Amino acid sequence: MPILLDPDHAPSLDDLLAATDTTGLEWRLSAAPGRTSPRIQGLGTLSSAGAAELSFLANPRYQNQLPGTQAGAVIVSPDVEQALAAEGATAPGFVRVVCKNPYLLYARVAQWFERARRPAAGAYVHPSAVVAADAVIGADVRIGPQCVVEAGARIGANSVLGPACVIGAGSVIGPDSLLHARVTLYAGVTVGARAVLHSGCVLGADGFGFAPDPAQGGRGAWGKIPQFGGVSVGDDVEIGANTTIDRGALEDTVIGNGVKLDNQIMVAHNVRIGAFTAVAACVGIAGSTTIGERCTIGGASMLSGHLTLGDDVHISGGTAITSNISRPGRYTGVYPYAEHGEWQRNAAVIQQLGQIRRRLRDLEKK
Amino acid sequence: MPILLDPDHAPSLDDLLAATDTTGLEWRLSAAPGRTSPRIQGLGTLSSAGAAELSFLANPRYQNQLPGTQAGAVIVSPDVEQALAAEGATAPGFVRVVCKNPYLLYARVAQWFERARRPAAGAYVHPSAVVAADAVIGADVRIGPQCVVEAGARIGANSVLGPACVIGAGSVIGPDSLLHARVTLYAGVTVGARAVLHSGCVLGADGFGFAPDPAQGGRGAWGKIPQFGGVSVGDDVEIGANTTIDRGALEDTVIGNGVKLDNQIMVAHNVRIGAFTAVAACVGIAGSTTIGERCTIGGASMLSGHLTLGDDVHISGGTAITSNISRPGRYTGVYPYAEHGEWQRNAAVIQQLGQIRRRLRDLEKK
Amino acid sequence: MPILLDPDHAPSLDDLLAATDTTGLEWRLSAAPGRTSPRIQGLGTLSSAGAAELSFLANPRYQNQLPGTQAGAVIVSPDVEQALAAEGATAPGFVRVVCKNPYLLYARVAQWFERARRPAAGAYVHPSAVVAADAVIGADVRIGPQCVVEAGARIGANSVLGPACVIGAGSVIGPDSLLHARVTLYAGVTVGARAVLHSGCVLGADGFGFAPDPAQGGRGAWGKIPQFGGVSVGDDVEIGANTTIDRGALEDTVIGNGVKLDNQIMVAHNVRIGAFTAVAACVGIAGSTTIGERCTIGGASMLSGHLTLGDDVHISGGTAITSNISRPGRYTGVYPYAEHGEWQRNAAVIQQLGQIRRRLRDLEKK
Repeated sequence: MPILLDPDHAPSLDDLLAATDTTGLEWRLSAAPGRTSPRIQGLGTLSSAGAAELSFLANPRYQNQLPGTQAGAVIVSPDVEQALAAEGATAPGFVRVVCKNPYLLYARVAQWFERARRPAAGAYVHPSAVVAADAVIGADVRIGPQCVVEAGARIGANSVLGPACVIGAGSVIGPDSLLHARVTLYAGVTVGARAVLHSGCVLGADGFGFAPDPAQGGRGAWGKIPQFGGVSVGDDVEIGANTTIDRGALEDTVIGNGVKLDNQIMVAHNVRIGAFTAVAACVGIAGSTTIGERCTIGGASMLSGHLTLGDDVHISGGTAITSNISRPGRYTGVYPYAEHGEWQRNAAVIQQLGQIRRRLRDLEKK
Repeated sequence: MPILLDPDHAPSLDDLLAATDTTGLEWRLSAAPGRTSPRIQGLGTLSSAGAAELSFLANPRYQNQLPGTQAGAVIVSPDVEQALAAEGATAPGFVRVVCKNPYLLYARVAQWFERARRPAAGAYVHPSAVVAADAVIGADVRIGPQCVVEAGARIGANSVLGPACVIGAGSVIGPDSLLHARVTLYAGVTVGARAVLHSGCVLGADGFGFAPDPAQGGRGAWGKIPQFGGVSVGDDVEIGANTTIDRGALEDTVIGNGVKLDNQIMVAHNVRIGAFTAVAACVGIAGSTTIGERCTIGGASMLSGHLTLGDDVHISGGTAITSNISRPGRYTGVYPYAEHGEWQRNAAVIQQLGQIRRRLRDLEKK
Repeated sequence: MPILLDPDHAPSLDDLLAATDTTGLEWRLSAAPGRTSPRIQGLGTLSSAGAAELSFLANPRYQNQLPGTQAGAVIVSPDVEQALAAEGATAPGFVRVVCKNPYLLYARVAQWFERARRPAAGAYVHPSAVVAADAVIGADVRIGPQCVVEAGARIGANSVLGPACVIGAGSVIGPDSLLHARVTLYAGVTVGARAVLHSGCVLGADGFGFAPDPAQGGRGAWGKIPQFGGVSVGDDVEIGANTTIDRGALEDTVIGNGVKLDNQIMVAHNVRIGAFTAVAACVGIAGSTTIGERCTIGGASMLSGHLTLGDDVHISGGTAITSNISRPGRYTGVYPYAEHGEWQRNAAVIQQLGQIRRRLRDLEKK
């Protein structure tokens, strides 16, 4: 499980690998003599896959599941293949696909299955969708029920809008993009090619900009700074469910090519995220902060505003970043948890650390 | 306030309690001689309830509001009833409903009111809803305006879909469930009986799975791992507004029976949450983590991926859990706040703790 | 950029300032002799604005961009104007608008542009919207496609509902409000005048209330406490994308006048937020907590339940507030981050702080 294709449409393992995009990967088959290539209906973990499924071993922690697997074929590294061979006469019952990068080969095979089960293309607009007369809809675009595409919006060829998406006036979706149900783009948002946008994400809401203005009701009142910038999203970007990306105040909020954003992330106005940076769920990035390329930001981290993080910076989950980081590396700031009573004892001392340092100095002077 | 029923439809206190499901609860009435049973139109706090309302005292911090309450009746514990009796001649003006568990009895009475004001049932599909011809709609299901129910989806008997819900292809909602406006289920999601799903929640978005793949645009680029698993939600589960539960990579993300999830929670792919565990708002649970039964997770906590928490584990709000927990108990990891200047002084020492320990050791050696 | 008006509709700088609401602000123009008032098509930063755009200098960190700006006019403080004058013969190429509060004057001008580009008003209900016959729709209200307005709801004059908003039964929107796409109000929610509500926000979902009730499935099971209160939002409130505000248990959750809430904030049941308080993104506020007036709550902070914060309290981002605060001031509780190895060394000592204090005491006694 999951079985992805019925037996009649399942390719043989050889045909499957021939159909898979293996750019940059080398692989070979290894099997007991006389073993024929199994038909592959789907993919599974080592513990759950059956004879018509392909599995993979990428994480050593699962190696002990290899001898008992029922999978018809398994992608393994050359090291694992060698170890299997060294075990001698008792060749494993599954065919091995040997590759230096089993996880990536698995990903490529999985991508083939994803395409194989995608519904047939062909231009389509559900009759309940409301599409402005001057919207520009590319070839073979599919627009689901209850969608709204406002004036002047452009949807690139082969893109799919799931149910109930809203594309604001003049906004742009590149070709080959997939918007799941209930994606919202305000006006003035541009998304590149091959985007994957998940349900509930909101691109282009106003940045949080207010100036103190007593004329708006008295002491402490706020006057709104209208947000005239847009959101500019590059190619090959994935944005998770209920993530929000605010429009810029005067210039755009910018998400670079190949950036991957998980669910429930908040990207404030005028943030810039460099190419290939990946951000895990529940992260908040405050206004005007710039993040470099190839960074990873762990879940539930928060970044203060107006910061600059260089390329190849890796932030551990749950860390608050409050100053610039120019040097590549891993940065962490998680308060360690403990049993509640122990935490109470230690936390009490936190409040006295300045005093403790002073007492230590006094002792050292004696 | 709130008044829930008009006077003509309000039951007497006796009738109300007779109609209430009191399974597992014992209770008795206590009133001044000759006092008749008041009609109960609604429920209120001790400070706000009027003569036609029932109140309750469950939290001792509100006991001082008891003498002044205008409520027609109050649910109290035997201890409170005894204290009231001991005050002698001046019997309180309200009828007492005496029960060892006032809060639970209140909950049951409130549930009766909730049912009483629910609109009449009866099968109904709003004409603006888009329901696939082969969707299986149970008896007396109500489907609100602008909903989308895709091919092969199944909605159990007596369930209600509020406005603008999207039920993906082949997904399943059990009987007697309530989906508020704008709930989104992707394809391949199963929800059990008696679910309550709140607006903006998203079940079944892709898990955040990517493999490094330079062929996708160069150094640092990511290749997508398609997410073929589903989401499996048990019976009696409530899921809060804008909470997201991702689908599994190959197997399902699993939410056990009776689990309660508050708003804006993120449950990543392949997480498993045991029965009756309650999770407060803004919690993030990273991929493949397993949480036991009867746990409580405080608000804004975060759990790293691939962890195992046993049964009856209680996490304080704001705590980052980064390792397995097998022993029941309460765990905390909140950095204590202080006035800003004091925080600055103490936080500066945090960065020197290793050094401070060393200096202490040096002194001890002398 | 952004150019907001075409040349034919762009006012001269004099006309623009005359049309701008400058209540409470004084300003004057200063320019090289003979310089005519430029036409202003839009607004820009110092680094991006062109000759037909107005810019501003509010933050000293951008002062070095002033000499090189291409802007046709710049709002500056009297100090900056004096410094420019002191530079002598080489008068700057741009017209200066001199004002003690450049940022606020900029805000007011930007508000003028925001109004100028707003589409013409006039009553309008898109034919795909579903509006209950007994809903009360004020004068010149505009209701977008796919909206749902339930029975008895009221929409105040001049308000705009973007696409796919859901207004629950009996809920109220005040006049001159703007709801962007996909705003959800449950039944029983009241919002005041001049509200700005962003996509995906949810007002009125059930508070997270459960009582232990073994009758619901065994040990550890929960019984639901129905939530009968509402949500009451004052005038001039802005609520960000995907923010959730739960309804009260018996009384209302209350958001005061002029409160500004950023994206992805969670406000639990029975919270009360005082006038003009501003809350940054990703904050969680637990149930029954009261926040005073004119507070600011930094991003990703969390507030425990049943607390009281007084007026003029300022919480730094990422801080967990776990006790009452009565004194105005700034409060912080962020664990400082470090390079990962350094963090590991220091975090290890955190777990021994109680012991370290004891050892220090022992040494001091000697």
